[in-house]
Formats: sequence, C-alpha cells, structure tokens
Amino acid sequence: MSNRPLILITNDDGVHAQGICELTEMMRTLGDVVVVAPDSARSGSACAITPLVPVRVSLLDDTLKGLSVYSCSGTPVDCVKLALEKVVPRKPDLMVSGINHGDNASVSLHYSGTMGAVLEACMKGVPAIGYSLRTRDPECDFSPYRDVVVRVARHVLREGLREDVCLNVNFPQVPALSGVSVCRMARGIWQSEWVEDAEPGTYRLTGFFTNLEPDASDTDYWALDHGMASVTPLTLDMTSYGDIEGLKSLQK
Amino acid sequence: MSNRPLILITNDDGVHAQGICELTEMMRTLGDVVVVAPDSARSGSACAITPLVPVRVSLLDDTLKGLSVYSCSGTPVDCVKLALEKVVPRKPDLMVSGINHGDNASVSLHYSGTMGAVLEACMKGVPAIGYSLRTRDPECDFSPYRDVVVRVARHVLREGLREDVCLNVNFPQVPALSGVSVCRMARGIWQSEWVEDAEPGTYRLTGFFTNLEPDASDTDYWALDHGMASVTPLTLDMTSYGDIEGLKSLQK
Repeated sequence: MSNRPLILITNDDGVHAQGICELTEMMRTLGDVVVVAPDSARSGSACAITPLVPVRVSLLDDTLKGLSVYSCSGTPVDCVKLALEKVVPRKPDLMVSGINHGDNASVSLHYSGTMGAVLEACMKGVPAIGYSLRTRDPECDFSPYRDVVVRVARHVLREGLREDVCLNVNFPQVPALSGVSVCRMARGIWQSEWVEDAEPGTYRLTGFFTNLEPDASDTDYWALDHGMASVTPLTLDMTSYGDIEGLKSLQK
Repeated sequence: MSNRPLILITNDDGVHAQGICELTEMMRTLGDVVVVAPDSARSGSACAITPLVPVRVSLLDDTLKGLSVYSCSGTPVDCVKLALEKVVPRKPDLMVSGINHGDNASVSLHYSGTMGAVLEACMKGVPAIGYSLRTRDPECDFSPYRDVVVRVARHVLREGLREDVCLNVNFPQVPALSGVSVCRMARGIWQSEWVEDAEPGTYRLTGFFTNLEPDASDTDYWALDHGMASVTPLTLDMTSYGDIEGLKSLQK
C-alpha cells in the first residue's frame, strides 16, 4: 500500500469535463488519486442528495498506477458520500472539487455542486478545497492556475484545516494571475433570472450577478475583478451568533 | 389592493403535502398568501437550481380571497426565484417554507430544500423563516406547533430580520412543547448512509445522524431532544473569518 497522500476528486461538470481532467493531472503530482464524479453535468446542484432512487457507482478506469476513476449517477454530494463509505480504501488526506467551469464566488457558492461536494467532505472531517474558474468556455487553458492549485493543496496536505472549515478557491480567466487574495465572500445578488420559453408559463434560468460591495477590497469578487485568485475559508456553521441575543424575546 | 402583509409560502415536500397546507392556514391569519411550491416531493434538494431545462409555473387555485396557489416544476429555490420575479405583485413582507416533514437541525440544513428556499428569499432581501418537524409521518398533528409558528412569523413581520439573516425553526414531535430555545446549530454527522440495492453497484441513501455535542444545551439538537422548539438565526455569509489571517502565507 502506497504511503503517498490519498486524494479524492469530484466536480459538478461531470467525470469527462476538462476541468476535472486537468485537476486530476495536477493532483497526481501530490499523491494517489481516486476520482468519483457525476456521469454527466450537475451544475447548480448545491448540497442536493438523492434520497428517492438508487445511486450507481461504476469503475471507469484503474489502468494507471495510483489513479482510479469512477462514474456516479448521483449528485456531487452523493459522489463524496459514496466515495468515503464504499470506494476509497481509507479516509482521504484531501478532497478537491473542480476545476469548475464558472466561478463560485460570493453567494453563487450556495448553488454550486462543486462547493456542495466540498461542504460534504468537510462534514465528514476530510480537508477539502473547491476550485472554480470564471469562464463558461468548455475548453480553456488551465495552465495559468496550476501553480496556485498545487500550492493551496500542498498547504492543506501539510497544515490541515480546522474542524468544520473548508476552502473556496476562485480564479479569473487571465493569461497570468496578478496574485492571491485570502478574503471573505462578497455580498451579492442574482437578478433578472428568468426568460420566457416558447411554451406559455415556462421559463429558462439565466440572469446576471451584481456585487453589492464593489469597492470592498477584502472580498472574493474584488480579487477576481483585479486578476487575482481568491482563497476564502468557509465554515459549516451558518449560525448568525450576533442575532441570538436579540431574538431571546421569542423564548417567553 | 389589500394592505395586509403579503406572505409567500413554499416547501420541499410538494404543494399537496400536509405541512404546507397547515402552514398556509396558519399564515392566512396574518396576511394575504401566495403559495408557489414544487409539483411533487423535492426532499434533499438544498439550494439546487434548474439551469438546463425550462421550469413551468401553473396556477392551481385562486378562488379564496387573499390566497393564490401555484405549482412549479422546479426546485424550492426555483419556486422562490420564479415567485419573486414572475408571480407576486410586489416584494413579499415575509417568506415561509415548510412545515417540513423531518427536522432540519444541525448540518441537515445543508441538504434541505425547505431551507434552500429560505436562503434564496434571504438572498433577495425578503425576511424568511423555515419550519420543520422531527417526524417522517406524512400525516401528523401540527396543532401543537401552531402558536410558535404564528408567534415567530408575527415577530419577523413586526421587527424584520437583519440583512443576510434568516431563521431555521425546528419542532420535536410532542403533544405539547416544553418551550422555545433561541440557539445555534449543533455540530453533527450523518453515518452509515448507504445500503446495497438489488442491482450490484447501486446503493440507496439512508443513514443515521449523530449529534457530536450532545451535552451542549445551547444547540438546536439539544432543544429538540428536550421537547423544545429551536429557533436558529442563520447567515448567508459562510466566511470563516477566524481562518483568514492564518492562511495569509498563501498570498506570498
């Protein structure tokens, strides 16, 4: 059995997407890799799970030393749950998700299957990182991001992350990054999200995102808008502690 | 036009579930109600959206004064997005989701479509509350929770909620509540989540939840275990602020 780190990989663009193939190649420099990813695109699946129908996991390839690839009929979160309980030989040292085609900065992370998988691994005590690129180009050049992808993963393999904390890493589409910003989520809003479809009463989801604090230089959106990679630590604990005291009148 | 508050209602158990019918009756005492809910059960859909196929919204009933009911082919988050942009005549004063069959305390909230809808309304600046009952009984008695459901809703209609903050309210299945606890999310974990299905390589999602801090009396799980309703304020901002400084070495 290898004593190299064990790295689990998934995404929400599907097992055949370019982003996960590139991420797999980058991670193979750091450890043994198991890929368990959706059999097709699952964009916008957030932390969704599949409670009503059975989920299938199938070995696609294990011909390369230190690399196994599985396809899964479920959501990204299902992929992580299944991988941890039924596929990997031991608890992984790291879980990475992506590289997503489209950024998951600001509130977009709430909808993201890429980040859903990261939150799931975090819930299971596995240090986890999501990587996303601000592009909708299905074929794009990931080489400008390779150094940061590997550097962040190596940092987490070496230092770990605190309990219930994971990382959301986003890249702007640029020929060369102008830096890395460790930062918070920006406040933002999606607007004008529906266009009428041909059939009356049906609509297609679209819309545009507005950063509600464009001048705040300590946010993920600001970093992306200025050519930098953003690294945002996230917590599973969504409690708004500052609001507990003010609501205590409800206990009466 | 009515000057009563406008209340939007959705859920993830579907527009015909008992929980949403009961919640609608409770809310009609407080204002005019528009229901836009999934056409069938969408449990476990979290903040998932439907980016790839058109979503349909259909009027089911508007024969009662101050009540319109729509069915939607999308997720709970789609329901809220469509309701706000295409259905309601003005921004609602309140959005409520539920009453879910099954609690959404601790990390279960991350998977919950009921709470996904609440987070979505919160992102759009609408004060929002999710209600969930610790039961899987499709037909159960919601009357023990009526007073607290109405009291929390009335409080939010009167006082509002801070920007980017929403409420997660959970009930234990008891003949009479022993109180209300305004509290934080418990740390917890789902385990043994898969059972093999008949066909090899396929699994069904199941599992049991373990509260990782059973002695902490300031958590939602503790409240439910002691016969109390839990009211947990949540924030959209998942940034783990305490981890930003320690990660700054990545900026080098």
